Amino acid sequence: MENNRVLIIGAGGIGAYFGGRLAQAGMEVAVVCRSNYTPVKKNGFDIRSIAGDFSFNPAGVYRSCAEYPGAADYLIVTTKVLPEIEAVKIIAAAVKPGTAIVLIQNGIGIETDIAAAYPDHELISAVAYIGVFRESDNRIEHQAAGHLKMGLYRGGSSAKLDLLCRAFNRAGVECEAVADIEFCRWVKLVWNTPYNPVSVLAGGADTRVISTTPELDDLCMELMREVCAVAAARGIHLPADIIRKNLDYTRAFPPYKTSMLLDFEHKRPLEAEAIVGKVVQLARAARVAVPRLETVYALLTAADISNRSRS
Amino acid sequence: MENNRVLIIGAGGIGAYFGGRLAQAGMEVAVVCRSNYTPVKKNGFDIRSIAGDFSFNPAGVYRSCAEYPGAADYLIVTTKVLPEIEAVKIIAAAVKPGTAIVLIQNGIGIETDIAAAYPDHELISAVAYIGVFRESDNRIEHQAAGHLKMGLYRGGSSAKLDLLCRAFNRAGVECEAVADIEFCRWVKLVWNTPYNPVSVLAGGADTRVISTTPELDDLCMELMREVCAVAAARGIHLPADIIRKNLDYTRAFPPYKTSMLLDFEHKRPLEAEAIVGKVVQLARAARVAVPRLETVYALLTAADISNRSRS
Repeated sequence: MENNRVLIIGAGGIGAYFGGRLAQAGMEVAVVCRSNYTPVKKNGFDIRSIAGDFSFNPAGVYRSCAEYPGAADYLIVTTKVLPEIEAVKIIAAAVKPGTAIVLIQNGIGIETDIAAAYPDHELISAVAYIGVFRESDNRIEHQAAGHLKMGLYRGGSSAKLDLLCRAFNRAGVECEAVADIEFCRWVKLVWNTPYNPVSVLAGGADTRVISTTPELDDLCMELMREVCAVAAARGIHLPADIIRKNLDYTRAFPPYKTSMLLDFEHKRPLEAEAIVGKVVQLARAARVAVPRLETVYALLTAADISNRSRS
Repeated sequence: MENNRVLIIGAGGIGAYFGGRLAQAGMEVAVVCRSNYTPVKKNGFDIRSIAGDFSFNPAGVYRSCAEYPGAADYLIVTTKVLPEIEAVKIIAAAVKPGTAIVLIQNGIGIETDIAAAYPDHELISAVAYIGVFRESDNRIEHQAAGHLKMGLYRGGSSAKLDLLCRAFNRAGVECEAVADIEFCRWVKLVWNTPYNPVSVLAGGADTRVISTTPELDDLCMELMREVCAVAAARGIHLPADIIRKNLDYTRAFPPYKTSMLLDFEHKRPLEAEAIVGKVVQLARAARVAVPRLETVYALLTAADISNRSRS
């Protein structure tokens, strides 16, 4: 089978879950693990999923991309988006002729460095709608949803993109190829950019607490307005009712903790730049006033540093 | 000696320190204590002060105003300003004909309920510039500054106000009688309203951390601008250089924790309403846009509730 070799970089919840599904679809899926190399090498992943528990025994487990033998057809990056994680360097050794690079990550503007460093490689950008996290070294908890939207960062369509979508769909993961992945990223950002930092800064608030506290609910609405204004300034016109739908959806959904709050509680670094800082940066470049986003961003960055400095 | 009897309500750092100074000035100073009644009744206050340590053995220690015998000339309220502390009711039993009510408290608009409930009593409003806190039941730490500005809430001047100022000055506490105490409150608020909540929400930042983190320093500057805009809308025109001076002062001063941060760390309720919420409320009434203040206020209120609900 062609286009069959997959290497996952960053085997947290997202990487293990979607990697495991591609293995179920018949692909040869290897993983690069850092902290959890030994337990994964020994036992693979144990995935508890709302869609039925399953195991994922990677075709290979490596400590770095340099150890991966031969060439991958898909190099799927599922690390957190953090300033200290330099994806361009981390993947370098595994980028071979014909390798497509796939980013399943949060945030906006996350593709630019990779696109610049690897101009001759297909770059597939993907947004995941899923509640999944790594509970321990090789144990993954999949609690909600689980679908993908992906598209070529530089636009257009490709056989590799179609093939990857079909593989996901074969394994029961709804995966839609979209023409404008940037638009999809902004749609997701309209929710992520308010709720993630507010959940942390409000003292550890789940979505229900946010929705039922009028001042926080209003704050999220105003933050969403600011995100939409930044998108509009960049020519991305989000649906008129997106804010109202997000508020309603969040209120109706069972209470849950945002991924940023989970990271904060585990004293892990926050994706503050990719989810909030980048929007502030784009706003400033476009001279769009985002006073609430700036406020939240300044406080979040400081709280993140302070949180990690504590034992 | 006339006008000699003082009753302090709320014997935390502020109450014990200024009460102790009035006792040194020859006044008969009693205190109402709640949580620390027994140790204070037994041993009085032990005050460690940058101006020299001293003891304060109150002329009387009571559990409530109702226990106070006779009539006080000055009823000095030094409690925190919290929604759950109803000063009007707490002091009721001690408000006798001729009793002047003195508020040494933070915030804005803190006098209105008392003024309405006791229209025939002199109401002296005071702003304290001091770093003092209660370290344990009867042990007080006085670490910085220690002067007062006070004036009649309803304007004008009075013999009682002058006499109280003179008593403080006799005991080495610089105390200035001012014609416009409301103006003084706003001046203090321009510092308090930004730095207090930012110190909490930024993950426990002292003034040095705030001043040396550009995003937080900028945030405080913008918050000060919003406070000044609200003041201006109310006809209070603060000095043009107040913001620059506050930024410079904070940067130059030795690092310290705001009173709100100390309260947060001890899981005590925050003076969020008096210091932040009231400004937001006045802004809305005057239709002044305060997006950063609203953001900080929403987050602070939620963080306060969450913080106190944790064991």
